[in-house]
Amino acid sequence: MTSDPAPPPFTDQLLPGSTIGILGGGQLGRMLAVAASGLGMKTHIFCPDPQSPAFDVSSHQTIASYDDDDALKKFAHSVDLVTYEFENVPAEAARLIKNITLLAPGVNALETSQDRLLEKRFLESLDIAISPFAPVRSAAQLQQALEKIGTPSVLKTTRFGYDGKGQQIIRSPEQAHKAYQEFSRRELVLEAFVDFECEISVVIARNGHGQIEPYEPSLNVHKNHILHTSTVPAGIKASVSELATITATRIITALQYQGVLAVEFFVTKNKTGDGSTSPSLLVNEIAPRVHNSGHWTQNACPADQFEQHIRAICNWPLGRSERMADVVMQNLVGGEVNLIPQGLLPGDHPHIYGKAKSRPGRKMGHVNSVSPLSGKT
Amino acid sequence: MTSDPAPPPFTDQLLPGSTIGILGGGQLGRMLAVAASGLGMKTHIFCPDPQSPAFDVSSHQTIASYDDDDALKKFAHSVDLVTYEFENVPAEAARLIKNITLLAPGVNALETSQDRLLEKRFLESLDIAISPFAPVRSAAQLQQALEKIGTPSVLKTTRFGYDGKGQQIIRSPEQAHKAYQEFSRRELVLEAFVDFECEISVVIARNGHGQIEPYEPSLNVHKNHILHTSTVPAGIKASVSELATITATRIITALQYQGVLAVEFFVTKNKTGDGSTSPSLLVNEIAPRVHNSGHWTQNACPADQFEQHIRAICNWPLGRSERMADVVMQNLVGGEVNLIPQGLLPGDHPHIYGKAKSRPGRKMGHVNSVSPLSGKT
Repeated sequence: MTSDPAPPPFTDQLLPGSTIGILGGGQLGRMLAVAASGLGMKTHIFCPDPQSPAFDVSSHQTIASYDDDDALKKFAHSVDLVTYEFENVPAEAARLIKNITLLAPGVNALETSQDRLLEKRFLESLDIAISPFAPVRSAAQLQQALEKIGTPSVLKTTRFGYDGKGQQIIRSPEQAHKAYQEFSRRELVLEAFVDFECEISVVIARNGHGQIEPYEPSLNVHKNHILHTSTVPAGIKASVSELATITATRIITALQYQGVLAVEFFVTKNKTGDGSTSPSLLVNEIAPRVHNSGHWTQNACPADQFEQHIRAICNWPLGRSERMADVVMQNLVGGEVNLIPQGLLPGDHPHIYGKAKSRPGRKMGHVNSVSPLSGKT
Repeated sequence: MTSDPAPPPFTDQLLPGSTIGILGGGQLGRMLAVAASGLGMKTHIFCPDPQSPAFDVSSHQTIASYDDDDALKKFAHSVDLVTYEFENVPAEAARLIKNITLLAPGVNALETSQDRLLEKRFLESLDIAISPFAPVRSAAQLQQALEKIGTPSVLKTTRFGYDGKGQQIIRSPEQAHKAYQEFSRRELVLEAFVDFECEISVVIARNGHGQIEPYEPSLNVHKNHILHTSTVPAGIKASVSELATITATRIITALQYQGVLAVEFFVTKNKTGDGSTSPSLLVNEIAPRVHNSGHWTQNACPADQFEQHIRAICNWPLGRSERMADVVMQNLVGGEVNLIPQGLLPGDHPHIYGKAKSRPGRKMGHVNSVSPLSGKT
C-alpha cells in the first residue's frame, strides 16, 4: 500500500454546482447524496437496482451493472468526481473510472480493503496489532495454517464477506477441512479466534491536504451477525480510546486516503488462555467508506460522517467532529422499521432508508437516541 | 383565528413510504425534501420555476403555476399530504388542495399570516403586545391613521411583503401621502415606528397531538433588509427569552398549528421618548413555515427545524430541540457564495442551495459557525 504507485490524491477543490457520481444506491448512497446536496452539489447515482433508495434524492440516475463498461464510461464522463458506498466495487470498474475522472477514495484503498489478506499485510507493515493469521489457498496450506494458528480459529473468505457471511468458526481440524470444501476452495484466510471483551470502531476523515478529523470510538454490539447498536461514549478506558484513534490516524495517513474510513477493533481481554498478556486492541477490519457504526454522528456532532465524507472528497476543510451529546444508534432490521413512528421516545431520531420492501435481516433504518452529554468516556 | 371554523388538525400519523407534496421549490423546499427523505418519505415538489433547487433532491416534480387548478388537483391527488415553504401560497390553491388531501399547516394559519392586518388583529385578540397600527384602505383612512399613529411610522402593504419590500418609513404626513400613491393605493397598514434594541425570533414546532417544542431565541441582524446573521445564544436577558418563548407558544397553540412556525420580535428599548416604560417585547411578524432564522438548528440541535417540521406535519413525536453548541448563522447573499469553500474556518458548516444563477440580493446559501457551548443566555 505504502509502495503503491498511484499518484497522491488531487488537492484542488470541487466547487458547489459540481456533480458527484456515487457507485451504489443503498442507504449509504442515499445519505451521501443528501449530504452532497447540502454542500450545493448535484449527484448521479450508479446502481443496478431500479428501486435504489438513493434515486429519490439524486438529480441523475444510471441503472446498470458494475461490469457494464459502456455505462460506467458514460457515467464517469457525466460527473466531476466519483465516490462509492461499498468496498466491493470491482477494481476494474474503479480503474476504468479513474482513467476518465477523479475517484475518491482511490483504487489502492479499495483493493486493500477488498482482500482480507492484503489488508492484514498492510496492517502488519505498519506494525499494527492484528490477530495471527495464515493464508489458505490450498488443502496443503490449510494444514499449515492449522498448525500455525490452531483452534479455535475463524476461516474467512478473503473477499466479499459482510454481516457474518463468508466466515465460519473452526473448533477442530476436521471442521476446518469441511468448511474449506463448503467455501468451494475459494481464497481463504485462517485467523486465530479472538476472545474479545467488546468491539469498537473509529470513523475518521481525511482530505487531500492531509487534514484529519477522527470521531470518538463507538461501542458496537452485533445481533445475528448484523450491527445492532453503536454506543457513544463507548465506556472503554481512555487509553484504549486514544490507542484506537492513533491507530486509525496511522492507517488513514499511510493510505494517503481521501474520504471517510472506518476501522473496526476488538478490545481483547487482558489475559490470554496461557496467562500471558495480549495486546489490548486488535484491528479487525477496515471499511473504505462511511460506516453503519458512524450513523450516531448524524444527531450528535456538528458535521456528520456523510457531510465529512463529501467535504473530504471535494477537498474542502473538514467540519468539526466533536461529540455534543451521548447517543445510542440502533439499527432497524426487517420488520423492526414498523415500530416507527409509534415507538419513538423523547430523544429518538429516526432515519428511514425508503426501501421498497422489508426482508428479514435487511437494514431498513436506524434510530439515534440522544441524551445530554454525561462527560463519561 | 380562534373562532376559525376549520376542523382541528388530523391526528393520525403519516407512515414512512408516504409522499409529501411541497408547494415551492426554493432552498426551504429543498431542505424540507432532504429532511423528509431522512424519515423515509418521498417528496413531490410543485413549483413554477423549472430550475428549482428542490428538484434535485425530490422523487417527483411538477412545473406549474400556483393558479393552475388542473395541475394543483393532479398534484394533490398524487400525494398523501401537502405542506409549503412560503406563506404567499394563494389561499384558493390551499383550499383546493385541502378538499383533496391533507394540508399542514392549515389554511387558517396561511390566511392569517398572509395579511398583516388579520395577523395584527389575531395577536391583539390574544393580548400579545404589538406596535400600534391602523388600516389604510383609502386616502381618508391614511389621514386618520396618521392622526392616530403619528410619525415616524412605517407604511406597509398588507400582503406579499418580504426582505424589506412593500414597506417604507414615514417621517412626515406628506411623505405618507406620496408613499400611498407609490404603493398604487393597495391595502396598507400604518405601524408606529419601533426604535428597537434588537430583533429576535423564536422558531417553534407543534404536532397535531399538541406537543410543542420551541427552539431557543436567536438574535437576528439584517443588512440591506435581508437577514444577515442569526446568533444563539442571543445575548438577551433570560426574562426576555422566556417571554418570547411563552408568546410563541401561545401563538402556535391558538392557531392549533401543525408544523414549524417562526415568530419575529422587536426587543424594545426600556424607555420611550417621553420617558415612560414600554413593553420589552413586540411581535413583528409570524411566518407559518421553516424560517431563515432557524437555520442555525442544523448544526447545533439533535433535530433541526426541517426534521421537526416533517415530524410535526406527519404527526410524529417531535425531536429534541435543545441547543448543544453556540452558533452564528450567516447568509451568503449573491456573490458571497463564491467564498465557499476557500473561506471556511474551523467550525464552519456551509449549506449551499444549488441555485443555477447568483444575483445580487439572492440568498445562495448560509454558513453555521459552531463553537462549544459557552453557557451564556
